[in-house]
Amino acid sequence: MAGPFLSLLTDFGERDPSAAILHGVILGIVPDARIVDISHEVEKYAIRDGALLLWCALPYLPVGTHLAVVDPGVGTARRPVAILTGRGDVLVGPDNGLLMAGADRLGGAVAAHLLQSETHRLPVISTSFHGRDIFAPAAAHLAAGVPLADLGEWLDPARLVPSPIPDPLVEPGLLRSVVVYVDTFGNVKLAGLRPDLEAALGPLTAGDPLVVTLDGVGSPDGRAEPIELTWQGVFGEVGTGASLLYEDSYGRLCLAENQGNLARRLGLAEDRPLTIARP
Amino acid sequence: MAGPFLSLLTDFGERDPSAAILHGVILGIVPDARIVDISHEVEKYAIRDGALLLWCALPYLPVGTHLAVVDPGVGTARRPVAILTGRGDVLVGPDNGLLMAGADRLGGAVAAHLLQSETHRLPVISTSFHGRDIFAPAAAHLAAGVPLADLGEWLDPARLVPSPIPDPLVEPGLLRSVVVYVDTFGNVKLAGLRPDLEAALGPLTAGDPLVVTLDGVGSPDGRAEPIELTWQGVFGEVGTGASLLYEDSYGRLCLAENQGNLARRLGLAEDRPLTIARP
Amino acid sequence: MAGPFLSLLTDFGERDPSAAILHGVILGIVPDARIVDISHEVEKYAIRDGALLLWCALPYLPVGTHLAVVDPGVGTARRPVAILTGRGDVLVGPDNGLLMAGADRLGGAVAAHLLQSETHRLPVISTSFHGRDIFAPAAAHLAAGVPLADLGEWLDPARLVPSPIPDPLVEPGLLRSVVVYVDTFGNVKLAGLRPDLEAALGPLTAGDPLVVTLDGVGSPDGRAEPIELTWQGVFGEVGTGASLLYEDSYGRLCLAENQGNLARRLGLAEDRPLTIARP
Repeated sequence: MAGPFLSLLTDFGERDPSAAILHGVILGIVPDARIVDISHEVEKYAIRDGALLLWCALPYLPVGTHLAVVDPGVGTARRPVAILTGRGDVLVGPDNGLLMAGADRLGGAVAAHLLQSETHRLPVISTSFHGRDIFAPAAAHLAAGVPLADLGEWLDPARLVPSPIPDPLVEPGLLRSVVVYVDTFGNVKLAGLRPDLEAALGPLTAGDPLVVTLDGVGSPDGRAEPIELTWQGVFGEVGTGASLLYEDSYGRLCLAENQGNLARRLGLAEDRPLTIARP
Repeated sequence: MAGPFLSLLTDFGERDPSAAILHGVILGIVPDARIVDISHEVEKYAIRDGALLLWCALPYLPVGTHLAVVDPGVGTARRPVAILTGRGDVLVGPDNGLLMAGADRLGGAVAAHLLQSETHRLPVISTSFHGRDIFAPAAAHLAAGVPLADLGEWLDPARLVPSPIPDPLVEPGLLRSVVVYVDTFGNVKLAGLRPDLEAALGPLTAGDPLVVTLDGVGSPDGRAEPIELTWQGVFGEVGTGASLLYEDSYGRLCLAENQGNLARRLGLAEDRPLTIARP
Repeated sequence: MAGPFLSLLTDFGERDPSAAILHGVILGIVPDARIVDISHEVEKYAIRDGALLLWCALPYLPVGTHLAVVDPGVGTARRPVAILTGRGDVLVGPDNGLLMAGADRLGGAVAAHLLQSETHRLPVISTSFHGRDIFAPAAAHLAAGVPLADLGEWLDPARLVPSPIPDPLVEPGLLRSVVVYVDTFGNVKLAGLRPDLEAALGPLTAGDPLVVTLDGVGSPDGRAEPIELTWQGVFGEVGTGASLLYEDSYGRLCLAENQGNLARRLGLAEDRPLTIARP
């Protein structure tokens, strides 16, 4: 009989012991827990990055309890919460938007509760490590079968802080998007999914030429820089080093360079606005 | 029934396969072992960093067998040891001080034995990877229930190499400390705990102004640089980018910048001496 | 009863969620799987690096299913395969040479099959994440006991893409080798094992003086640069900062600096040709 499943996502970093301490606290409460680390290398304080990684990963993980901590407001009034999803998962973390995109992908937030119960926390609560003192014990008790309502008062899911992942703007013949994440391959994930782009430009076929125009922030003359590339289904269909726009394996619009690092070559960072059109 | 619990800490790095090999050797001996990685990104050869991470993490991990390898003296005369703690854990690693601060936090070292037994090692012992050949098999056999005395001869715990983590010096109105660790957030952990500072300066209240004076090593004129900041309980009580001194979640004195990287901004590295006083 | 054992090796990076998704997909099929991460920090697209890490690690892991993905050709014609080894392990990944050195260390490739079965894949196959859609489900089903032949048609193991790890060239009094991997300590692993060097230079004894000559690529005058060092059995037998050639813990020839980073000091990178001789 396999034990309860939990996943962890934080910005704690792999060098420090904080992520291991979450494991330790959970195993102290649920000795047979099965724990998967989604990432502990989320950019420090980058709530949106964490939200996007949850959006990517959670649909592929077993139903379980998912603990996420990217928490620049630790120790302040931001609320610690647990959210029940339509799929039956429970998401645990700060109410700062981090959890909401992931909840959407698991059938939406169907209930939420504050984490108030003193019997489901560590005995001493520090001001700077609520992951250890509040979130991990709550997640472990929930994974062990404690009812959500035992953790604290009910919250209206519609009143939780919304997801920080922006939507693109569909115009006739033009999609206005923005860089939302640069992955470790240098691939550049954008606001919007393939249907958004097709709503703007019509149906797309592999090989279709496109023009991506970056806003001129940081360029010498402040002018827009157009990038000519093609819509592709497969990396290997363009030459090594060629640029492409494709639907990534999660359905998201993504700029990439075959076997290269596009973000580094073009100096692309998060929040950079851009537009996509046909030439 | 959950299997035996072990933790691992090394300076092997996440890229190389060495940490996975420790897992493999342990699981070959204890197939149902539950293993948590405290960190494999300890700075290379930095015994004190490893010691501090164990000091932080071990109290939050289940009772078990804790294997740590930061071992610049591998292949030389330094002794491989297993240490029984007051809490009932066993710490396994080189006798170079790495394990002692962790042992202190688990009730102290109550017994120690050399790792000499050939039946509890791999058949061939390399000169450069005792983690794989000596420490991991010993830890696994101990986790499986082999008595400590079967591993080798008894050692007086008082004769083990002491912890490399320094103590601060309390003077009337002044605490002399030193940087002992810079975490991945750029927070700067110091020698000493809150009671040490209160022994020097009297009781502390959130908002108390303090002056931290760095020694002038590396500054153009070799003179001390005073930093004005406040004692705080909570990061969020100062503005973003403001500096503070606080008791970290382990009770240790820690310099930080709210949502910033203080170590980078001030160029603070380990071993930098400093003093703390009221203005 | 411990569950099936699997290991993972990829170039996905620790920051992105891709490695966790492999865990999730596997646990969705085999809830009690025991999974060890060999590395997810393999240099992007570096098939040979991944091959060498498997060569190092696999002999020390339990018999099981080993999933490896370093796959610059994802989405193209390169074949997804599962390979049965003489030891009884199954290796799963792209047929691009990645798996072959590891298979050699586990008794050789005794059978191979294509991964074609639609019942052992995810329902939708993306073009860019076959690790998730094809390799992880196949590995999980194989770990759960599905016969190899159920995955797809038989392949002649002799026709698989061979290992990219080069062999050295033994000449009388000279070994021609090449840098094949630089580990996180800056130790420089070479093509060839100790017996290769002894075939060229005769029996080696600790302290024997040797001359390593780098080719002049990148040097100002294009001339060879000789490095004088000694053959050693143990790092600690030379002074801190001294260079040595030694047999690493896997039997491979390796250049190192006691407690230093030789690769950084000498600017040594992969593929740099060199020769080893007595003075």
